Amino acid sequence: MSSIKTEIRAGAYYDSVILMQLQRSLADLPKVIDAGVVMATEANKDLLEQSGLLVDEIKGAKADDLVIVVKAENAKDAQKALEQVDDLVAARRSRDTVGQDFLPKSLETAAKTLPDAKWILISVPGRYAAGVSQEALRLGKHVFLYSDNVSLEEEIDLKKKGAEKGLLVMGPDCGTAIINGIGLGFANHVRRGPIGMIAASGTGLQQVSVRVHQMGGGLTHALGTGGRDLSSQVGGLTARMGLEVLDRDPDTKVIILLSKPPDPETADGIISFARGLSKPVVINFIGYGSTLQQIDNLHFTTTFDDTAAAAVRIAAGDETLQQEQEYPLDRFKAGQCYLRGLFSGGTLAYEALLILDYYLPAVYSNAPINKEYRLKNSLVSQEHTIVDLGEDEFTVGRLHPMMDHELRVQRLESEAEDPETALILLDVVLGYGSHPDPAAELAPVIKDARLNAEKAGRYLEVVIVVSGTDADPQDMKSQEERFREAGARVFRSNDKAVRYAGGLVQALEGKNEPVSAPSFTPVDLKSLTGKFSAINVGLESFTESLLAQNVGAVQVDWKPAAGGNTDLMALLEKMKG
Amino acid sequence: MSSIKTEIRAGAYYDSVILMQLQRSLADLPKVIDAGVVMATEANKDLLEQSGLLVDEIKGAKADDLVIVVKAENAKDAQKALEQVDDLVAARRSRDTVGQDFLPKSLETAAKTLPDAKWILISVPGRYAAGVSQEALRLGKHVFLYSDNVSLEEEIDLKKKGAEKGLLVMGPDCGTAIINGIGLGFANHVRRGPIGMIAASGTGLQQVSVRVHQMGGGLTHALGTGGRDLSSQVGGLTARMGLEVLDRDPDTKVIILLSKPPDPETADGIISFARGLSKPVVINFIGYGSTLQQIDNLHFTTTFDDTAAAAVRIAAGDETLQQEQEYPLDRFKAGQCYLRGLFSGGTLAYEALLILDYYLPAVYSNAPINKEYRLKNSLVSQEHTIVDLGEDEFTVGRLHPMMDHELRVQRLESEAEDPETALILLDVVLGYGSHPDPAAELAPVIKDARLNAEKAGRYLEVVIVVSGTDADPQDMKSQEERFREAGARVFRSNDKAVRYAGGLVQALEGKNEPVSAPSFTPVDLKSLTGKFSAINVGLESFTESLLAQNVGAVQVDWKPAAGGNTDLMALLEKMKG
Repeated sequence: MSSIKTEIRAGAYYDSVILMQLQRSLADLPKVIDAGVVMATEANKDLLEQSGLLVDEIKGAKADDLVIVVKAENAKDAQKALEQVDDLVAARRSRDTVGQDFLPKSLETAAKTLPDAKWILISVPGRYAAGVSQEALRLGKHVFLYSDNVSLEEEIDLKKKGAEKGLLVMGPDCGTAIINGIGLGFANHVRRGPIGMIAASGTGLQQVSVRVHQMGGGLTHALGTGGRDLSSQVGGLTARMGLEVLDRDPDTKVIILLSKPPDPETADGIISFARGLSKPVVINFIGYGSTLQQIDNLHFTTTFDDTAAAAVRIAAGDETLQQEQEYPLDRFKAGQCYLRGLFSGGTLAYEALLILDYYLPAVYSNAPINKEYRLKNSLVSQEHTIVDLGEDEFTVGRLHPMMDHELRVQRLESEAEDPETALILLDVVLGYGSHPDPAAELAPVIKDARLNAEKAGRYLEVVIVVSGTDADPQDMKSQEERFREAGARVFRSNDKAVRYAGGLVQALEGKNEPVSAPSFTPVDLKSLTGKFSAINVGLESFTESLLAQNVGAVQVDWKPAAGGNTDLMALLEKMKG
Repeated sequence: MSSIKTEIRAGAYYDSVILMQLQRSLADLPKVIDAGVVMATEANKDLLEQSGLLVDEIKGAKADDLVIVVKAENAKDAQKALEQVDDLVAARRSRDTVGQDFLPKSLETAAKTLPDAKWILISVPGRYAAGVSQEALRLGKHVFLYSDNVSLEEEIDLKKKGAEKGLLVMGPDCGTAIINGIGLGFANHVRRGPIGMIAASGTGLQQVSVRVHQMGGGLTHALGTGGRDLSSQVGGLTARMGLEVLDRDPDTKVIILLSKPPDPETADGIISFARGLSKPVVINFIGYGSTLQQIDNLHFTTTFDDTAAAAVRIAAGDETLQQEQEYPLDRFKAGQCYLRGLFSGGTLAYEALLILDYYLPAVYSNAPINKEYRLKNSLVSQEHTIVDLGEDEFTVGRLHPMMDHELRVQRLESEAEDPETALILLDVVLGYGSHPDPAAELAPVIKDARLNAEKAGRYLEVVIVVSGTDADPQDMKSQEERFREAGARVFRSNDKAVRYAGGLVQALEGKNEPVSAPSFTPVDLKSLTGKFSAINVGLESFTESLLAQNVGAVQVDWKPAAGGNTDLMALLEKMKG
């Protein structure tokens, strides 16, 4: 008749590798049927129950109690197995595994042993991890914080301290990173190349990096941030620091930014920040539906495969970064600041509103996307305005503005007289059914409007999107020429016309710089690009991996201070300041 | 001293072309300074006010009153101008414009004159448009309904009647269409080619069609539906009928579907309907952020330029349509229906949930996207389940499942024993830090699990995504081979693995057919592909455009019944049934 014996060690600390090995060694002992060696969390107790190992003594154990359970053929063998626990643990000597003659007991000693190491990898249990990270920051090292079960408050505190010192806090729960080709934690061996990555997602970073490799691309650096970095509380501090340093890295041509859907405000902030960078950024906020797939240097993608493919394509130079526009900003008079769009096409107006949303804070309309910005009176513009003159309200007993330009001419004249108008945006839809010669009606008015503005010391930009084909009855080329002669800037794509107009007016507003950029000390680029070496606290396999990659690494023979008593540890931590 | 004289004609009907021409003729008379000829809507009264023409007599006029205002140098000339109104109107003879010897007074007569015409274009004022459209449907004709200011109730009634008879009701407020190369209403002269379009957007259809042309592509047919077609009330009835007939058209290779953001439920329905088609569909629901850019045959785009570019690219054959998967459906036992995903990578699990959302109605998880589907107990699967074994709850004092497979092996065994499990999905993340030989631990378990299932008369599909590179320390190819030998289906892309798994389980559920397809009589394909001719009621310029395109067209000399008295008209309409 089988027998189960248990032992509970309250608040005891053991490395999880040791626990796994102890469990396996116990199970391998003669006459032992099964064994469990776990911290007594609810999940682990449920698992013990599934294996038929959850006896009454264990049910009351706490999450930081170590529970050892042995099920053997009889009580004597179970007891014998339990008595061997300490010998089995002692049999495993870290020294042999990582091949170090001497294992420093503290970060400080380790830092002296390997003074060039700029990185510390931390994978001690969550309840000790914040304290070890604080120590690492005090030593002026970047932190790769693999540990999970670290509180949000601790994360925020660590990241704020790191930001002050220009030190990256990657994590908590950061599984992976690649620095200058060297994999930290879990990382694939990926070809070197021109793509840099920032990811609030461990296996996301790994999957995208292997897909980049499989598609023929390669990476400079890939920085994990921890899964909560883009939460409202953390605000993407590590992501911003990482983006900023990759933007300065001459070997990085394209940046990938990966995260689960961020808090909306944080998303706006980080998008705005990324838009202020000089390089293309391929974004995948997994599950975040972007209303535009491209905005300036930003490319939104939805799956890891898409993300990898877009980055590889852009890095290969198939797409050049949108050129910095040369806007005639100096020619405008002070006070000229508003865009006025007078559309005959309702959906063209709608697309304009959609795109302008990424350029201007508020655009009023008689057919707004956001009802908050409905024009009080469709006949009177307010600040930035896009008016759809084809709306039902204008067409009762009146021809559509694509056939009859009278309304548009009137409105164009009054907008042009407004000293706050900087830019007038018009669509001209050619084709069957439309007015046979729109330029004949509109071009002279545009010319006069620009001359009148000039006389008043202003500069009036008129942007026209001509929507037509070379086979349309109106002769598109002649239409375009006459608009150009009248001083208008002519586009064939509504998309491009609106982006030009939005960019110009945004530049006029002087709001081109990233919004709400937090102050942080920039990361020293050399800590990424220099020869890599690191100190590792926790899982020895991480040191083994670093050694396998032929880089300098020191394993710390870490034990929690005060024997793992967290109250006492907190007190010690406070005393260090 | 100038003088303003006015005349109000209550409930009078005039074509809007006539009103425009009358206004211009009056303004051109000697000593006349300005003139206004408008229906007395609020918007039009505001416009008269802006021009200084809004005198007291007009202020009380109603929306269906015609207001004629003349401002002349003196009272006598103003009066003289007003007296010429009827002569000026009479001077314009439709007959001359459209070159018809005989202008039929009714649709019925017109249909006898041009019996092959399958289309009727309607652009009479909104308050008469529904009645004329009903007449057109009674005659068995497709309706191109340009008129706006038609009520939603009237639209629904017309579309239901059309659906019964297999007749398209394009509109109201449908500005544009191209049938077999012939432009209706406002339409560009676009190259013939393999792209078909459905659009609840007039100028959107025009802009995309001209961009397709400019990018070297071409169109078969482009069907407007009216802007409200994808509202919750109308439910996309015209869009569905259009999609269905284009899917049957042998010349159409790719379909574009364009609309402002539809009502969410209608969007789900129409997406599901489009996914049931045999052809690629490029969708732009302007301003609708899709969480995936591609789902099977559907491609989501965000701007007109993107839409046109994607359609041209797909039509050119650069991308082949995803092949119909051959799933081994017959091998599964009745009752096997669930997918069980056991992930070590949190973000891989998250991407899996995101993609499966398009395949399966509900997927439970310990880290769900939709909190409604949170597992009651992370250790126990419910229906379709994706479990992230790397979540904090599992890793207290335990190695990450990328290093230690014990938990996953246990779970895999129990899922495999569940007679409702059809498919087990696993990720295997290679690279530094991960387990040195995952196949050694997982492959034998997979093999046994599949054998045990076979013994029980079941078929167990195991899908594995191996995330790694050929330079990883584990030797990816050998890993993949051993998983294949164990009977697993191996992918390198999480995206593709999840789509395969989702597709298989969806097929097992027998839910592959489009959801909520409304019953409608299919449109006769020949009415699109046959020689085009049409009857036009309303704006004569539409007949002119048709004639300019060398097709048969008859202009109806339409006047509202009962002299435009809407009450009486409604009564007459009722009597017709």
